[in-house]
Amino acid sequence: MTPGTTETPGTERSPRVAAARKLLRRAGRDRAGRFLVEGAQAVREALAAARVHELFVTDAAAERNAELVARARERGVRTLTVTDRAAATLSETVTPQGLVAVCDLVDVPVDRALAGAPGFVTVCAGIADPGNLGTVVRVADAAGCDAVLLAGDTVDPHNGKAVRASTGSVFHLPIARGRDAARVVGTCRAAGLTTLVADGRGELDLHDPAAAPLLAGPVAWILGSEAHGPGPEVYAAADHRVRVPIHGGAESLNLATAAAICLYATVAARAGIAPGRSPATG
Amino acid sequence: MTPGTTETPGTERSPRVAAARKLLRRAGRDRAGRFLVEGAQAVREALAAARVHELFVTDAAAERNAELVARARERGVRTLTVTDRAAATLSETVTPQGLVAVCDLVDVPVDRALAGAPGFVTVCAGIADPGNLGTVVRVADAAGCDAVLLAGDTVDPHNGKAVRASTGSVFHLPIARGRDAARVVGTCRAAGLTTLVADGRGELDLHDPAAAPLLAGPVAWILGSEAHGPGPEVYAAADHRVRVPIHGGAESLNLATAAAICLYATVAARAGIAPGRSPATG
Repeated sequence: MTPGTTETPGTERSPRVAAARKLLRRAGRDRAGRFLVEGAQAVREALAAARVHELFVTDAAAERNAELVARARERGVRTLTVTDRAAATLSETVTPQGLVAVCDLVDVPVDRALAGAPGFVTVCAGIADPGNLGTVVRVADAAGCDAVLLAGDTVDPHNGKAVRASTGSVFHLPIARGRDAARVVGTCRAAGLTTLVADGRGELDLHDPAAAPLLAGPVAWILGSEAHGPGPEVYAAADHRVRVPIHGGAESLNLATAAAICLYATVAARAGIAPGRSPATG
Repeated sequence: MTPGTTETPGTERSPRVAAARKLLRRAGRDRAGRFLVEGAQAVREALAAARVHELFVTDAAAERNAELVARARERGVRTLTVTDRAAATLSETVTPQGLVAVCDLVDVPVDRALAGAPGFVTVCAGIADPGNLGTVVRVADAAGCDAVLLAGDTVDPHNGKAVRASTGSVFHLPIARGRDAARVVGTCRAAGLTTLVADGRGELDLHDPAAAPLLAGPVAWILGSEAHGPGPEVYAAADHRVRVPIHGGAESLNLATAAAICLYATVAARAGIAPGRSPATG
């Protein structure tokens, strides 16, 4: 607490808590241009990478995270001590963390995400489940992607579940949104990226030698919706449809595991792990 | 309905429904040696691959799945028409399917799962989340594994969430359980498999050229618990600890995506996609 001021814990009825609560919904986030980030790790990432406006913290959480709260105050973040109950109303988790930050939305325009000659991009074209989206952002980050583009009806990356599943990765690489999925694919191609749709019925096997030079070059992977893949306009706009080979009795893979396999096949190709090539000679 | 018999719909109090409900819990499954399988696709897989004893079906589900219910009856499966409410008490899903089968547990002894010179095995050593386990079984199936071994404190593969996440794969390849994880690893080594622990801090990079010959040979991948990896006894018993390289700002990958990357790196190595090798010459 700043010396000389008297703070009473904010309740769920406090105007600032009530205003923050609107950010639990997409309409509220889009209107305010802000979103909520919960928990010590995510708040730490937000302070490092995003513009944080407010921090709501319970007494218990302030004690557990004294250094983090002090750092937020140093940076001019408005901090409000709140009751457990008020913190719970800002949380979508079973066990609220008592620490919730209000941040500016992280997405940037598509053109800016693709500035600087990107070599490796992930495009989410219609991912509906926020947990899946967050997991894909996490894998794209780990694989070293330059950006993640969210095209068409993809779920909001600022959704609480998406942010949690990304475990901080929403703050690590540029994220951009474009409503017109075919146009996003076209922008990728114009940026010099070969556009590959991950598709269980794709004509090109991920492990076909013909895929290796594509994967080793500048590439954008396009991941469609869980239920029905990307739309026909995306199929038409993309360069190739690539399938992960299925060797057993499974009919398919789930979205996140298929994405991980495709993105890391790309990482392997860049490490020189491709037919007839070696890291020493290739 | 068989001509000449009169069936009244079973309620949640019917003895057979009550007995089946005990299978929702692990103790009940272990005692009866049976588990529940819900939904048309899973029941179809169970009829093809497992011993099915009973089928509970609502009128609506019987109408939607007339052919499947007829096939079950032909095979001597005892079928009981039940009320929606009774079916719901056998379901763990938000929208009960109205179609639940009682099947024999699918697991076999470890020795039998490893019979016949296996070349590619997945070992789950402490996976706690049933959704994760089911997803790993699905990926192992898709990658063409010969078996999945569940070691130590790994969750029951017959858990409803695990069965659903596997999307039928629990019926596609041998699954075995062994309480002593180090012993399971030892059995894999005795079967001629190189044992690789997937570990974020492993000494061998998955994309290191030195990993390629290991991956191309007979291999067992060991996946530890979500929270703290496999136990020290598993580390000590295994041949190598292998890390998925992280290129961006992410600290780690989640269990299912890391498993998918490791298993499909193995698939790629077998397809000849390895440093200095090509499918034509390797």
